[in-house]
Amino acid sequence: MPIDDLRPTIDWGKYQTLTLERRDNGILLITIAAPDGYPAPTLTRRHTEISYIWRDFADDPELRVAVITGTGERFWTVEGNDGIDEMLANPGNYDNTVNLIREGLANTHGIVNCDKPIVSAINGEAMGSGLATGLLADISVASTDARLIDGHLLQGITAGDHSVMIWPLLCGLAKAKLYLLASEDLTGEVAERIGLVSLAVPPSEVLDTALGIAERMATGPQHALRWTKRSLNHWLRTATPAFEASLGFEAMSFFGPDLVEALTAQVEHRPPNFAEPLPW
Amino acid sequence: MPIDDLRPTIDWGKYQTLTLERRDNGILLITIAAPDGYPAPTLTRRHTEISYIWRDFADDPELRVAVITGTGERFWTVEGNDGIDEMLANPGNYDNTVNLIREGLANTHGIVNCDKPIVSAINGEAMGSGLATGLLADISVASTDARLIDGHLLQGITAGDHSVMIWPLLCGLAKAKLYLLASEDLTGEVAERIGLVSLAVPPSEVLDTALGIAERMATGPQHALRWTKRSLNHWLRTATPAFEASLGFEAMSFFGPDLVEALTAQVEHRPPNFAEPLPW
Amino acid sequence: MPIDDLRPTIDWGKYQTLTLERRDNGILLITIAAPDGYPAPTLTRRHTEISYIWRDFADDPELRVAVITGTGERFWTVEGNDGIDEMLANPGNYDNTVNLIREGLANTHGIVNCDKPIVSAINGEAMGSGLATGLLADISVASTDARLIDGHLLQGITAGDHSVMIWPLLCGLAKAKLYLLASEDLTGEVAERIGLVSLAVPPSEVLDTALGIAERMATGPQHALRWTKRSLNHWLRTATPAFEASLGFEAMSFFGPDLVEALTAQVEHRPPNFAEPLPW
Amino acid sequence: MPIDDLRPTIDWGKYQTLTLERRDNGILLITIAAPDGYPAPTLTRRHTEISYIWRDFADDPELRVAVITGTGERFWTVEGNDGIDEMLANPGNYDNTVNLIREGLANTHGIVNCDKPIVSAINGEAMGSGLATGLLADISVASTDARLIDGHLLQGITAGDHSVMIWPLLCGLAKAKLYLLASEDLTGEVAERIGLVSLAVPPSEVLDTALGIAERMATGPQHALRWTKRSLNHWLRTATPAFEASLGFEAMSFFGPDLVEALTAQVEHRPPNFAEPLPW
Amino acid sequence: MPIDDLRPTIDWGKYQTLTLERRDNGILLITIAAPDGYPAPTLTRRHTEISYIWRDFADDPELRVAVITGTGERFWTVEGNDGIDEMLANPGNYDNTVNLIREGLANTHGIVNCDKPIVSAINGEAMGSGLATGLLADISVASTDARLIDGHLLQGITAGDHSVMIWPLLCGLAKAKLYLLASEDLTGEVAERIGLVSLAVPPSEVLDTALGIAERMATGPQHALRWTKRSLNHWLRTATPAFEASLGFEAMSFFGPDLVEALTAQVEHRPPNFAEPLPW
Amino acid sequence: MPIDDLRPTIDWGKYQTLTLERRDNGILLITIAAPDGYPAPTLTRRHTEISYIWRDFADDPELRVAVITGTGERFWTVEGNDGIDEMLANPGNYDNTVNLIREGLANTHGIVNCDKPIVSAINGEAMGSGLATGLLADISVASTDARLIDGHLLQGITAGDHSVMIWPLLCGLAKAKLYLLASEDLTGEVAERIGLVSLAVPPSEVLDTALGIAERMATGPQHALRWTKRSLNHWLRTATPAFEASLGFEAMSFFGPDLVEALTAQVEHRPPNFAEPLPW
Repeated sequence: MPIDDLRPTIDWGKYQTLTLERRDNGILLITIAAPDGYPAPTLTRRHTEISYIWRDFADDPELRVAVITGTGERFWTVEGNDGIDEMLANPGNYDNTVNLIREGLANTHGIVNCDKPIVSAINGEAMGSGLATGLLADISVASTDARLIDGHLLQGITAGDHSVMIWPLLCGLAKAKLYLLASEDLTGEVAERIGLVSLAVPPSEVLDTALGIAERMATGPQHALRWTKRSLNHWLRTATPAFEASLGFEAMSFFGPDLVEALTAQVEHRPPNFAEPLPW
Repeated sequence: MPIDDLRPTIDWGKYQTLTLERRDNGILLITIAAPDGYPAPTLTRRHTEISYIWRDFADDPELRVAVITGTGERFWTVEGNDGIDEMLANPGNYDNTVNLIREGLANTHGIVNCDKPIVSAINGEAMGSGLATGLLADISVASTDARLIDGHLLQGITAGDHSVMIWPLLCGLAKAKLYLLASEDLTGEVAERIGLVSLAVPPSEVLDTALGIAERMATGPQHALRWTKRSLNHWLRTATPAFEASLGFEAMSFFGPDLVEALTAQVEHRPPNFAEPLPW
Repeated sequence: MPIDDLRPTIDWGKYQTLTLERRDNGILLITIAAPDGYPAPTLTRRHTEISYIWRDFADDPELRVAVITGTGERFWTVEGNDGIDEMLANPGNYDNTVNLIREGLANTHGIVNCDKPIVSAINGEAMGSGLATGLLADISVASTDARLIDGHLLQGITAGDHSVMIWPLLCGLAKAKLYLLASEDLTGEVAERIGLVSLAVPPSEVLDTALGIAERMATGPQHALRWTKRSLNHWLRTATPAFEASLGFEAMSFFGPDLVEALTAQVEHRPPNFAEPLPW
Repeated sequence: MPIDDLRPTIDWGKYQTLTLERRDNGILLITIAAPDGYPAPTLTRRHTEISYIWRDFADDPELRVAVITGTGERFWTVEGNDGIDEMLANPGNYDNTVNLIREGLANTHGIVNCDKPIVSAINGEAMGSGLATGLLADISVASTDARLIDGHLLQGITAGDHSVMIWPLLCGLAKAKLYLLASEDLTGEVAERIGLVSLAVPPSEVLDTALGIAERMATGPQHALRWTKRSLNHWLRTATPAFEASLGFEAMSFFGPDLVEALTAQVEHRPPNFAEPLPW
Repeated sequence: MPIDDLRPTIDWGKYQTLTLERRDNGILLITIAAPDGYPAPTLTRRHTEISYIWRDFADDPELRVAVITGTGERFWTVEGNDGIDEMLANPGNYDNTVNLIREGLANTHGIVNCDKPIVSAINGEAMGSGLATGLLADISVASTDARLIDGHLLQGITAGDHSVMIWPLLCGLAKAKLYLLASEDLTGEVAERIGLVSLAVPPSEVLDTALGIAERMATGPQHALRWTKRSLNHWLRTATPAFEASLGFEAMSFFGPDLVEALTAQVEHRPPNFAEPLPW
Repeated sequence: MPIDDLRPTIDWGKYQTLTLERRDNGILLITIAAPDGYPAPTLTRRHTEISYIWRDFADDPELRVAVITGTGERFWTVEGNDGIDEMLANPGNYDNTVNLIREGLANTHGIVNCDKPIVSAINGEAMGSGLATGLLADISVASTDARLIDGHLLQGITAGDHSVMIWPLLCGLAKAKLYLLASEDLTGEVAERIGLVSLAVPPSEVLDTALGIAERMATGPQHALRWTKRSLNHWLRTATPAFEASLGFEAMSFFGPDLVEALTAQVEHRPPNFAEPLPW
């Protein structure tokens, strides 16, 4: 029996904060930057777009491997006061927080459940959703001097977007807690040493290395490749409930005083003065 | 509605083998040494105390982070013939073994289920329950030259106190079995390299580094911090049945001939001559 | 009550592709080479033998520790066109694939469920079932210059024989995917650094190091040793369903076009030209 | 920040084997029958459509609850020789089997991961993918006299489409194996008694009961409802690797002799004479 | 070595909403009613007390088995407008919600991790935390006509207090979702039939039956009893991450509009009109 | 390539406590009774034999399905003072307890990991290892009036042989604890109602029903059958660590006072007077 083609039509034109380039052998290069002619993106919009792109990539029959990278000295991070202003508008807003849960689930599970492989080329600073995306990618190539930092606790909120699901399986629990609980940052070089990323290379080689690996996979046996990824990711599927527990608690954090204090302190260039916890 | 305060009264005075110091910002420094004026502790008493301290720490509303360290060249280990004499009094005693199960559960789960973070400053040699406590701590700072050794098999007993729960998530299964099955010791430097501890620093910096990390966490957002630890530790909760299987088998070991032989050989400065196993 | 001895009689004489040597202290040295007087083995026969040896080792009351090693510059790998010819005879054959599933299960679970410890001395190149055996061993000692490569994807098939069960627990998911999805090879030295093997030593020391570790375990407390291995391996038992999912998908691969293409290309010394995947 | 609407456009017109009706309160009624004017559907086409509908349902902002039902005395089953002819065209075809894996994953995970609730109204006979869909639905209402049968083993293939994931959690392992391994059929009444379905009611009340439950949920608190479903389904997510192992083995079955024999025997109205298994 | 007694002093006098009676053989009878002379309790206070009692019970060396029951026609449920007024004071209050998370964890894990057995005598209506306590008890004896209802969704909030952890293991997923997602109530008789409770007996026999079972256990072998409970409860420990995910999402619900609407509608004796969910 | 036959030679003659009959279609009927001419078996010998038979059954290429049944009014239980005398010789004996662990593992995992199906025909009373064997069988047919009782706690020991692994998946946790913790017995009829066994039929039909089911499976598609059983049993493999924790604790029980007291009381026809547990 022939199998009918019921694939959805993909609207690739909707992306305004991610620049997309289709390359040979079914490689999709995603650059975390507004395409030419688009204004600087809001954090909110980019967060929304990243939660749709993985299923579009999965659905597109011509695509085989995705590579995601940043520009200049940044992979993906919050920049300037605009980002903080956006976040300061968020706390205490129920609808926005519900949406954040939804998009956090979509980005995380989107990467995990897309059987086609994804490579991150972490060219520079990565934080928050950027770090989540970079580390959830199947193969991660970081610049030796890229600064990686989870940042959730610095902003007064539970680390709920990816770390509980994958860090213990990348670098072990002792290292994971050092960086997540004590909010230490680390370089790509150290990240490679502890297993947090697949490879660390000099800044100028990051993208080429990632594209080379993508090329290798794009010309490999596609079904075998996808079933191997799928099978390996059962480790992450098994950790899904723990991840979603952290996500629920992160959502709680959006209604408490510490996020506002952290962001305000950042704007005012002073250390935050977090609230006294409940006595119990 | 106001929430009534039903917290238990904590008797901090009961500790005779651990020296406690309350420091700024809710940090509790626990030194593994008898407080001034108390006699040298028995192993038995210390094992009992460590099984109570984590819930006292969790219950005390003024405390936020615990740091545990040793003195001189020891973090926590069996020392001299007194310790061996104590252990030689133990085998074959059903009540003592039941109590050992109970306290093993209390120490292990006490650290894991206390949502407030715990930092170990492994200043020197760590073995047995000392190693368990040092490695179960959320963040572990070891002296580069500290000697770490599990030691269970050297004493003829199953490694049942913490290793099955956490070693594979710290340093991977190949390394875990090298040290646990072949009873190799390792330095803090090697431990850091394989992910068994969070950090290794020169001996003179161990406590200050640990206190610095504790300070950082103690001034961070407390609920977000505790929920992040709690969520990460689901990895350990999931491994609880395997840990308790090892604990049950360790209890069995207390009734066999190998523990007595191991200890006797140690007293007599000769290699042990372990029993022939069952043929099956 | 005396316990009757119902042990099966072991036919050690059936091994024609593995050279067996019984050494002091119950150590069984398995060399991956035909015993004197036997012809060069087929891959098929060796795969069958490895699926029986672990339970024979487990059943033999005089044996305590197994050490498995190769000869010359090879641990265990496919060599020459003979091997490829054998594999080219396999695809599309339902019975052979059913047998392959059976033997894949027997080798993997045989190592995991044998409570007696197994040490691999990976003296040289390891690939396919050889790599599986080397890495599933409890303690693995690799030559610093040994070349390790999973090779499944290079042959167009899903990596279904051991990697999903154990790699993420050895070296973390980021490294595992680099080597498994992008089919990178790595040396013993790198393997040790990322935790894939327990130790890496110069080529000339591999076997002696492995035998030394075996000796240490063979003179240790046997029940405690076996219960510790057993308890640690619950981590692998928990990952069994994911492993068998990968095995099922690997079996599927044997009926597709990519395996034949990969092997043919290898014979013809050209890069493979894998099939277009389904559009969905 | 307003959240931009990037939802995909849903092509509801592509469904030719399922009749769709949008009812009050966001209820989507799916009847397993070709819409007016469409020819009798092939099994292949219906299998494809069911693998797309759950994400369309999830994406449509106006929909809240889905109800799926059959017509006459059938919920969803293979009927007549046409279905068998289709299946006889399938075995040994690699591409069709790859597609079957893909659609099996899509239907199963589509129901599980759609956070909006789904109710099945099992009005009559359910078998194969029909039974999978009926039992994976969150709430299942069966006619007391509906005949339920898994049927995989009757067709000579591994039961790989849903049963391993959910039967043990519905009716326990002893009952699951009775019906799955011994290919017993059971009525809706018995199914309710053992927990396989939520409710059994007389034939004439099946759809109304299902719609009543759907109504109740559709007017309930939507976020709380979806998060509760999502959290409960972690039980199924944890069983995903086991399910996919069964799926891989089912795929294997498509290349063996037993499926063809089973279908041929059915056409010839004689008992099947299945192949001798491998001796091992 | 004698084992020193470091048990905490238990302040049994702090309980004002639970009447405690110590009976023969170490049985503690907990009646969910204010002791004589105490005013009618608030829901808040009772919720707090239930979160402390299990560890007090566990710590008291004279106690062996706990039995918990209600009075009249109620086991434990919200009664009258006072309860609603209390709850209406709660939503949107971050501190109260943090405390609710804490107490939800304490009650649930307190029952699960207390190795001494607990019997519930569900004499009448049970809802909310009352139902959680009744069903988490190791052995539950319900009156055949007791009305059980989860009630979370009726109040507009995620079912986050116990159901995700234990319902699928009590009555299967199909039944669990019927009662939890569609907010159906059920009698004790039905609950017994589907496995939700251990036993259902006529109203007049509930307490005696429960006490008889408690007596049986209290005169049994205590260590064997506790280790059996402990081992069985690993099933619940493994489900802990999923439970806490539901708890996190329930906490989120406290900041949304649906809880207030549900309670207000209840006061106003009208059906609730829940908010439109986010379109995505 | 032809696959060489390396199957071990099976010594079927070693069984002296189990009567074996090979029937048509590869069915092995195991009757729990000494073969003609053999003396009444000891419990110890039977326990040993049951731990070998499943792998012999799995290895025999002519066998497809096993059926196990008892004689007269007993399936398998301890009978008379001889059994008690044997057990009274056991406690405190380390070697015997080690062997008991080994055989407990072998029987349990032997049934679970044998991919060929096993049917139990529970014709009469089943207790201890008999109950374990009867309930671990894939399909269990019980006489409506057969008395089933776990009995571990009645003998003062932890229920460590199978119940933790499988009862919660058969009948749910509330029922499991009623029978396991309160040592209630139940009939086959009740067992079927709660899902503990697959079927209950009148005494005279038990064996025929079991043989009929065996016949049905023996003439089905063997690979599909075995892979379906294998996949379903991943649920049990995942519960293995919890089971082995209970086994370890049961082993502990053999060194305590309660087993001796229970057996002595039984001999003396008086209620046991179990030891005071540790105060903690």
